[in-house]
Amino acid sequence: MNDGKTGEQDRIQSIERGFAVLLAFDSERRNPSLTDIANATGLSRPAVRRILLTLQHLGYVQPTGGSHWELTPRVLTIGQHFTTSSAVVAVSEPHMGRLVEETQESASLSAMDGSDVVYLARVPAKRVLNINATAGTRVPAHATSMGRVLLAAAPAEFVEDYLANPGLQPLTPHTITNPDQFRKTLTRVRDQGWSLVSEEREIGLIAASAPIYNHAGHVVAALSSSTSTGRMSPARVERDLVPVLVRIADEISNELGA
Amino acid sequence: MNDGKTGEQDRIQSIERGFAVLLAFDSERRNPSLTDIANATGLSRPAVRRILLTLQHLGYVQPTGGSHWELTPRVLTIGQHFTTSSAVVAVSEPHMGRLVEETQESASLSAMDGSDVVYLARVPAKRVLNINATAGTRVPAHATSMGRVLLAAAPAEFVEDYLANPGLQPLTPHTITNPDQFRKTLTRVRDQGWSLVSEEREIGLIAASAPIYNHAGHVVAALSSSTSTGRMSPARVERDLVPVLVRIADEISNELGA
Repeated sequence: MNDGKTGEQDRIQSIERGFAVLLAFDSERRNPSLTDIANATGLSRPAVRRILLTLQHLGYVQPTGGSHWELTPRVLTIGQHFTTSSAVVAVSEPHMGRLVEETQESASLSAMDGSDVVYLARVPAKRVLNINATAGTRVPAHATSMGRVLLAAAPAEFVEDYLANPGLQPLTPHTITNPDQFRKTLTRVRDQGWSLVSEEREIGLIAASAPIYNHAGHVVAALSSSTSTGRMSPARVERDLVPVLVRIADEISNELGA
Repeated sequence: MNDGKTGEQDRIQSIERGFAVLLAFDSERRNPSLTDIANATGLSRPAVRRILLTLQHLGYVQPTGGSHWELTPRVLTIGQHFTTSSAVVAVSEPHMGRLVEETQESASLSAMDGSDVVYLARVPAKRVLNINATAGTRVPAHATSMGRVLLAAAPAEFVEDYLANPGLQPLTPHTITNPDQFRKTLTRVRDQGWSLVSEEREIGLIAASAPIYNHAGHVVAALSSSTSTGRMSPARVERDLVPVLVRIADEISNELGA
């Protein structure tokens, strides 16, 4: 893996390999051995060993005995640097608290990362049964109201690339999978300034989203309010949630200088 | 910075420098220039440039114009790998939801990282006014109920090292700063199995914590319930919150095989 020479290429590879080893720890490999990580990353065992010792020195991994390893909570600090350095998150958080208070439903803030939607922040409603959607969670863009708001603001070529890959994978029997119907849906989202998606990502889940604009007039995030279809019909979400959501999204945009 | 030779030391340095550049983005430097990052990290501008291009290739940073840079939401994915790979977080989250439902107060899960307490997860109560304490937030151990539970379970040498550095820095006029008094407090926490701290970290803030044990009988986290002194006196926290907190912490420990 190391040809004995150095240069830009080598140094880039070391950093890339460092992140590859760090990301090899996940729900499938909570407590991997050196060999598990070598298999997962395609790196040699000596290379993985040197990287693990480096990451241990930085405090991000620790040995758990029997040559197995685990991530430490210090890894969370890296994501925290995004949260504290993001103006959108900083400005949005108090408004998200108000959205939850006014609607009694969970609020989320998200942005595009590649072809996925990634949660930037989430404020669960009181009767929280599912708090898995923490910051950093990734969900498919096409089947969520957040993703539709973000795709509706993206250049047409970006949308066409998405339609080609990953494409409109069905997550429930209700997921829109027809490209023409999907393009029309995005046009409607753009025209009306919000999106409502019911049971296309998961049966029982309904959510509405509205765009957040920055000072340059670009959509930088989606604000969403989500609940269960058992609590609210689509008609009721549109009547009761959407106006509050759009108003608070606009207030965030104003505070960002839009 | 690069002497033209390679080897273990070089490769370690590249990874360390990669993280140093990533962590140079924070609330003080949300949108730094290459020069800002060079100044913050002590690295040369050409070294910073190569690292930024590598991190951009990995999707963690992006240019914002005028040779300034910002973190992308993909950075959150790194922390998410801790959250999804941590058995303690996975087991605790549904119990934390129950703790909030039963007490109507915010619940937190935390662990030691070096001499700091770091939040692993947090479920805010409905009337959330402050959701800044997201996963990854670091707080001083000695002035929090979480930290006292974790320090009470730590080896005596660890506590003595803490007393020497960082020491018992006063955060409010109520922070315990006398080492003897602090050691006695830890003994009481160990004996009673919970900690209650009122206004030692911040005026108006009161919290109680209980330890979570793993299968090996080690304390691996602290579960806490926090509120304001305006809502609850210390006596009421002890009478109403602590029994629920200790019961739910024990249930988490049982589920972890303690």
